[in-house]
Amino acid sequence: MLKQIGEAAAKAKYTLHGLTTEEKNKILLAVARGLEEDEKRILCQNEKDMDKGREKGMSAGLLDRLCLTKERIYAMAEGIRQVAKLPDPVGELLESFQRPNGMVVEKVRVPMGVIGIIYEARPNVTADAFALAFKTGNVVILKGGSDALFSNLAITESIQKSLEKQGVVKEAIQLIADTDRKTTEEFMKMNDYLDVLIPRGGAGLISMVVNNSTIPVIETGTGNCHLYVDCDADLSMAASLVVNAKTQRIGVCNACESLLVHKEIKDSFLPLLMKELEKVHQVEIRGDDQVCALIPQAKKATEEDYYKEYLDYILSVKVVSDVKEAIDHINHYHTGHSDGIVTENEKTALSFLNGVDSACCYWNVSTRFTDGFEFGFGAEIGISTQKLHARGPMGLKELTTYKYIIKGTGQIR
Amino acid sequence: MLKQIGEAAAKAKYTLHGLTTEEKNKILLAVARGLEEDEKRILCQNEKDMDKGREKGMSAGLLDRLCLTKERIYAMAEGIRQVAKLPDPVGELLESFQRPNGMVVEKVRVPMGVIGIIYEARPNVTADAFALAFKTGNVVILKGGSDALFSNLAITESIQKSLEKQGVVKEAIQLIADTDRKTTEEFMKMNDYLDVLIPRGGAGLISMVVNNSTIPVIETGTGNCHLYVDCDADLSMAASLVVNAKTQRIGVCNACESLLVHKEIKDSFLPLLMKELEKVHQVEIRGDDQVCALIPQAKKATEEDYYKEYLDYILSVKVVSDVKEAIDHINHYHTGHSDGIVTENEKTALSFLNGVDSACCYWNVSTRFTDGFEFGFGAEIGISTQKLHARGPMGLKELTTYKYIIKGTGQIR
Repeated sequence: MLKQIGEAAAKAKYTLHGLTTEEKNKILLAVARGLEEDEKRILCQNEKDMDKGREKGMSAGLLDRLCLTKERIYAMAEGIRQVAKLPDPVGELLESFQRPNGMVVEKVRVPMGVIGIIYEARPNVTADAFALAFKTGNVVILKGGSDALFSNLAITESIQKSLEKQGVVKEAIQLIADTDRKTTEEFMKMNDYLDVLIPRGGAGLISMVVNNSTIPVIETGTGNCHLYVDCDADLSMAASLVVNAKTQRIGVCNACESLLVHKEIKDSFLPLLMKELEKVHQVEIRGDDQVCALIPQAKKATEEDYYKEYLDYILSVKVVSDVKEAIDHINHYHTGHSDGIVTENEKTALSFLNGVDSACCYWNVSTRFTDGFEFGFGAEIGISTQKLHARGPMGLKELTTYKYIIKGTGQIR
Repeated sequence: MLKQIGEAAAKAKYTLHGLTTEEKNKILLAVARGLEEDEKRILCQNEKDMDKGREKGMSAGLLDRLCLTKERIYAMAEGIRQVAKLPDPVGELLESFQRPNGMVVEKVRVPMGVIGIIYEARPNVTADAFALAFKTGNVVILKGGSDALFSNLAITESIQKSLEKQGVVKEAIQLIADTDRKTTEEFMKMNDYLDVLIPRGGAGLISMVVNNSTIPVIETGTGNCHLYVDCDADLSMAASLVVNAKTQRIGVCNACESLLVHKEIKDSFLPLLMKELEKVHQVEIRGDDQVCALIPQAKKATEEDYYKEYLDYILSVKVVSDVKEAIDHINHYHTGHSDGIVTENEKTALSFLNGVDSACCYWNVSTRFTDGFEFGFGAEIGISTQKLHARGPMGLKELTTYKYIIKGTGQIR
């Protein structure tokens, strides 16, 4: 079955290459409208998933992620309309040069081809992933969480129906309905058919894909994000940044999980920070001895704490002697996602920004801005924590590759 | 042992980030001089590998690749001097933009970090890989073929000695001396220490790495390259291009392996081509029925033939009805490396250039130009046939990644 899906995708991908930006946008709008029209069918299928979920005792949080409502379906459709409005990166001439033998080399942005996406029980990803891939001329093969199967099938069928009405092959989106573990394993080794595989979900899903896929993977990763408050920091700005990065939204990868404080300002800064944190939300502090001496309610941090992405109202804190110790600590414990310095000293800031090996290095800004929308990309496929192909927030461009087109007059070697 | 190597590399990588372009170039020149000075030691160790190779009955071709001479060592050193002369891509500001909240986002080119390279018994790759990685601020961990172990150790020691003399940590280059298969398997799963793994060698080595590595891999691949001679081609140009692409060097990935001929010109073109080929070298033709009818000495091609990278004086040939059939055939049988059209018709050419899904698409140029040096990159790490990160010839830029540096004045969400 997987082979058939792969072959259908291979066929479909070349038909998408011929579509203009205007055609793609028109089709996306039709797909959005189609989802709204199919609202009742989709909700009915979603109810089946919800029933199964309740039966098996799914947590309230997971059920909420799984649940669709009229509003959520309309939001999905609106998301697709937003993608239609974004500029199309495909076709961009990235470079062009002539060689001494007269041949002209053009480097042109083109679609990847076939993108595989493996995700958890979030039906909205189905529509979202399709829209981003389609806008960039790519075909998608989706493997969603089994708990959302009925919802995903309903959404996929609605999209396929709209595609066919618009004269586009429906295999521009395909969903793998077989939720067997073996199928997923096979899917991750379909190098003949897929150009890239993107896992969207928690740390477990991501490491499963990284460890088992032979297809090139874009790892969208966990964030053990740090803020370092330097001796030359504006302390009230520093407190505001830590409070924001820690508490504004705790369950996200760009939230601050660890705080480093220069020894010279620890006595003034830590009490100030605690006062500001208390105004917003209770945060558990796990610190070294110096931190515990200053914050009575703090717990002693273990080595493990400094590696942790809490995704909770918990913050590990450590006192450091200088920016160099801060950089070394971060490069050792971080996940390469987002790390920031708070300082008024430009020289110190630059050594931090150059020295920290993260996708996003911040100076006097909250780490919460690592996000495709906040960066102005208009869309986000995820935040890459690997260094190949894409790093940091990924927008539409990151779903494309390039090809070289070489034009000549009979040149030989 | 691998863990120690990984940790030493992790430490070393940050010391390289601090080097200026001038410092890196000076060190590369010292390394080149050092290799020349160590000529006798290296040759003596190479002789040990050669003895072992002869004992085990290695083929003349493999022994030749393994063999070092004074000239080859000096050529290695000269290669390093060439790399020193190339522009340094690190530090390039790729993009810069201000967001409505006032924060400034800079996208800057930076080193990857730690690059792993797995290669066969070609000692020159040791020096070459080091030079390219070092120039781009990267640390390398090398795993060379066991047949070249003594040579690789001697070259690595020479480079390390020069590095230390220049005040650089010697772990900027490390060679895994353990040639055990298990060690190689472990090496391919060192995600904590390596940012990218590049296999350099034949199809077997590459697929071994693609199938077993959990580290992001850049696949440098095989080339089943096609030329399509259209009905509107200048036939004498077409013959010259096919002769060049097929015979100028047969053992390389950008050589032509398959020829497609438009049905309308087959009668005039194929005899002309055979006449031109005979002037240069005997080439075995494996064709379809129409080809066999026109070329008496041709063998009948099997389905398998159209998939083959011969790396030999063999060419598969097929008659097609139009450019669309040519495109479909190529997209089905090729390896996504280099494919070309010969035609004077611009419209036909453009449909081919857009429709063929290859790293390099040629119009009236020999496929033999898919090469970092021919493209003017000054160096080449390999030709990527995957679509992630890099496609086609890879030079220094392709050994780098980017990071975002975000500067602000206390922005929060």
